[in-house]
Amino acid sequence: MLPYKSLIQVDRSSSVTLYIQVCNMFISLITDGTLQPSDLLPSSRTLADLIGINRNTVKLAYEELISQGWAESIERKGVFVLSSLPILSKKKLPETNKTTDPQEAFLWTNHFKNSAPSKNLQKTVLTIDDGFPDVRLAPIDQLMREYRSISRKFYGKSFLKYGSSKGSEHLRTSICNYLSNTRGLVISPENILITKGSQMGIYLAAQLLLHPSDHIAVGLSNYSSADQTFKHSGANLLRIPIDDNGMDIDYLEDCLAHKKIKAVYIIPHHHCPTTVTMSMERRLKLLKLAKEHRFAIIEDDYDFDFHYDNKPYLPLASIDHNQNVIYIGSVTKTFAPALRIGFMTGPPSFIEAAASLRELIDRQGDTVLEEAFALMFDNGEMDRYFRKSLKIYKQRRDLFCELLKSEFSEEITFKIPEGGLAVWSNFEEKIDLIKMSGEALKKGLFIDDGVFYKNESFSSNGIRMGFASLEEKEMIKAFEILKMIIR
Amino acid sequence: MLPYKSLIQVDRSSSVTLYIQVCNMFISLITDGTLQPSDLLPSSRTLADLIGINRNTVKLAYEELISQGWAESIERKGVFVLSSLPILSKKKLPETNKTTDPQEAFLWTNHFKNSAPSKNLQKTVLTIDDGFPDVRLAPIDQLMREYRSISRKFYGKSFLKYGSSKGSEHLRTSICNYLSNTRGLVISPENILITKGSQMGIYLAAQLLLHPSDHIAVGLSNYSSADQTFKHSGANLLRIPIDDNGMDIDYLEDCLAHKKIKAVYIIPHHHCPTTVTMSMERRLKLLKLAKEHRFAIIEDDYDFDFHYDNKPYLPLASIDHNQNVIYIGSVTKTFAPALRIGFMTGPPSFIEAAASLRELIDRQGDTVLEEAFALMFDNGEMDRYFRKSLKIYKQRRDLFCELLKSEFSEEITFKIPEGGLAVWSNFEEKIDLIKMSGEALKKGLFIDDGVFYKNESFSSNGIRMGFASLEEKEMIKAFEILKMIIR
Repeated sequence: MLPYKSLIQVDRSSSVTLYIQVCNMFISLITDGTLQPSDLLPSSRTLADLIGINRNTVKLAYEELISQGWAESIERKGVFVLSSLPILSKKKLPETNKTTDPQEAFLWTNHFKNSAPSKNLQKTVLTIDDGFPDVRLAPIDQLMREYRSISRKFYGKSFLKYGSSKGSEHLRTSICNYLSNTRGLVISPENILITKGSQMGIYLAAQLLLHPSDHIAVGLSNYSSADQTFKHSGANLLRIPIDDNGMDIDYLEDCLAHKKIKAVYIIPHHHCPTTVTMSMERRLKLLKLAKEHRFAIIEDDYDFDFHYDNKPYLPLASIDHNQNVIYIGSVTKTFAPALRIGFMTGPPSFIEAAASLRELIDRQGDTVLEEAFALMFDNGEMDRYFRKSLKIYKQRRDLFCELLKSEFSEEITFKIPEGGLAVWSNFEEKIDLIKMSGEALKKGLFIDDGVFYKNESFSSNGIRMGFASLEEKEMIKAFEILKMIIR
Repeated sequence: MLPYKSLIQVDRSSSVTLYIQVCNMFISLITDGTLQPSDLLPSSRTLADLIGINRNTVKLAYEELISQGWAESIERKGVFVLSSLPILSKKKLPETNKTTDPQEAFLWTNHFKNSAPSKNLQKTVLTIDDGFPDVRLAPIDQLMREYRSISRKFYGKSFLKYGSSKGSEHLRTSICNYLSNTRGLVISPENILITKGSQMGIYLAAQLLLHPSDHIAVGLSNYSSADQTFKHSGANLLRIPIDDNGMDIDYLEDCLAHKKIKAVYIIPHHHCPTTVTMSMERRLKLLKLAKEHRFAIIEDDYDFDFHYDNKPYLPLASIDHNQNVIYIGSVTKTFAPALRIGFMTGPPSFIEAAASLRELIDRQGDTVLEEAFALMFDNGEMDRYFRKSLKIYKQRRDLFCELLKSEFSEEITFKIPEGGLAVWSNFEEKIDLIKMSGEALKKGLFIDDGVFYKNESFSSNGIRMGFASLEEKEMIKAFEILKMIIR
């Protein structure tokens, strides 16, 4: 007989009932090969005496083992490990198990490794981020009040059931109105899919438009997550130069003469990372080319709501008159990054296909949150928030640029951005950004190391410095730390 | 001169300021080709008189046009449409525009069309669903209280920033404990990725494991959304028969003799649609085959928490001793479908790769919601909810099956399910389920039409009838409507 006294040990303080504990320990003995098929288990009386528990508890445990298909009872002979179970080899020790390369267990491909995975900013204290909103300014409490109130109401509970993969109809309507009021975009809810932030819009568009070895035109410098997403679809990136007026559309035209391009990805307003705005002339020319060559324009306009110096340019989607534009925007990037709400607009049949694909990815969004945002748009709360934060961000931009100029005129060159939440800052060559970032972190400041912005054809010594999430005293403190390091 | 009096019409009740209205109308005239590059705009005095607004408003509008790059001012000559704009053709009428096939605008492929798209259940009143929880039982208010309280706290606000694409560390730890207590699964947070419901787990696993023309084994009948997800990865489905003990593993073994299989997808507990539970013998044999043939087991165990008659079988992931199992579960499907929280466990490097891919899809989840669920697990609220709802669902299952037997013994055959939230009900052949579903809807009852469960090799006349979300009086009412139709 096996040394059951040491093998089966019960814990009376556990919340798991005793017979289940005994049952589970037998299962472990079977699955690790200690007990083999057809082995006889000790009688309930023997085991009860050995481990000091009630005999009925052992009986219950055996019944559980039998009902779960681990054991069988043979009349007048006792309880046996099920004879038809496959014979299992002895379990490896946990230590050995831990070092097993999982690639040995089953075959899979890890070709998704990002060159520079995104950072978790929830744990950092003082942070110069990539250009994110100040979550302290967002009217979270109003949003949560709506959220909670919806989910408590009788009619609101139905929003907890499965809904449409296109998103809440209410929010789609509210966003139509918002896009019409702010961007002159004339669309109806059938043109809209609610996404989990703009990244999901990019992903869905990439999957629908691009097949292996298709070409997509992107900026020479570009939002790296978009590049990765297009590559994941198997597409080839065609890099187009970016100057002070945005993407060089003449260059693109030359490429089109000898290459079929399926789509062009632009952030016309303001380009990431360099923050330049695409001129109206180029916008119109790009639309003209799209029509002639039948490619799609993926217009990522996450930054539209933050433009300081004059009224922002109309999106290409508002000018488009041939349905060539897929317009992607974000509530997430204007409100709070962890509340994942964005939108994608396009021709209705394209939106239908995107919704079908989205069903496979995560079925749908959080309808209660979508409804809460719809109410925030409807009751003017979002508008008030945009106006209020725009004013604050403009002040922060001005102060940030002033400090940057007065404190780092030797080390950093930059242009004041017309909009957006970050300054594209070029550091003098002798400053090693990776080293700088590491040293700053030791002194309590998170600042990017610039790796995210580099690609196979672009490698300036620059980073985006986000000013929007920093109050004046935080800016000053951050710059003091930075000064200590790079001087 | 153009008929500006009718072309430019302002709306004084609009919230958009007058000069912006005028500016936008000129932009429309330019983009639709009515105004061409180098055309002279009317003088501010002329236009002001024509449309009855202040001359300064017109001047502001022109300044805006110029700053946006639509027009240029030539000294002593006036304001002109920018000469370097591309010449645009006249805009089509909106009516014509609407009928344009978007496939003509740009090239994309719609191969994602689901055979049977999921239903929006938020608008139906009386519903026999696919087997979903009763959202009225979930402790939503406690969850919302946690949610709101986190987002109001100083430390909680940091959860609104960008976080980890693996999900909240707190929730990953809480789910480790929960899986260990309920399923004997010994893992650590590095083995867990928080997903948006189990569907995202299936999607991520499919994308990582399957390449075009790879083989994946699935049930002859199977959860259709999983089938679609594997097909979307380009994989071929290998259909394995399902009997009363789950997937026929001997049949699978025969297939393995002459075919390389990358993965096997199972819902061991309880199979969808037929609700059968896979026997322990087959579970162990499947694990043995996985080790020998180095394939992955995708174990979709969304239904584990609802098992009525004895203790549920241990998941394969708890028995696995060669890291072959990717275990997928759902909080969504046990709590409230529209709150998208699920999890996926696997070897750490596989979870890392899944997190990288997830960054491209939607960056991350809603951290505040994740933290709120973590607190609900920690303070025992989830456990209380599971116990309470399990008891209620068992009563509902018993009553539902009793009614089904007494009212529809002629028309419907079924087995009482040991667990899960639905009864797999086979209707006699002469009943046309699509017709039945349509007629029921007219009488105020939503009931599925069975199309979702059919595939190229499986076509019974059955549907899953969800009992969990129906109170007694609702069941009776639903059955009354059904009786009127199918008798």
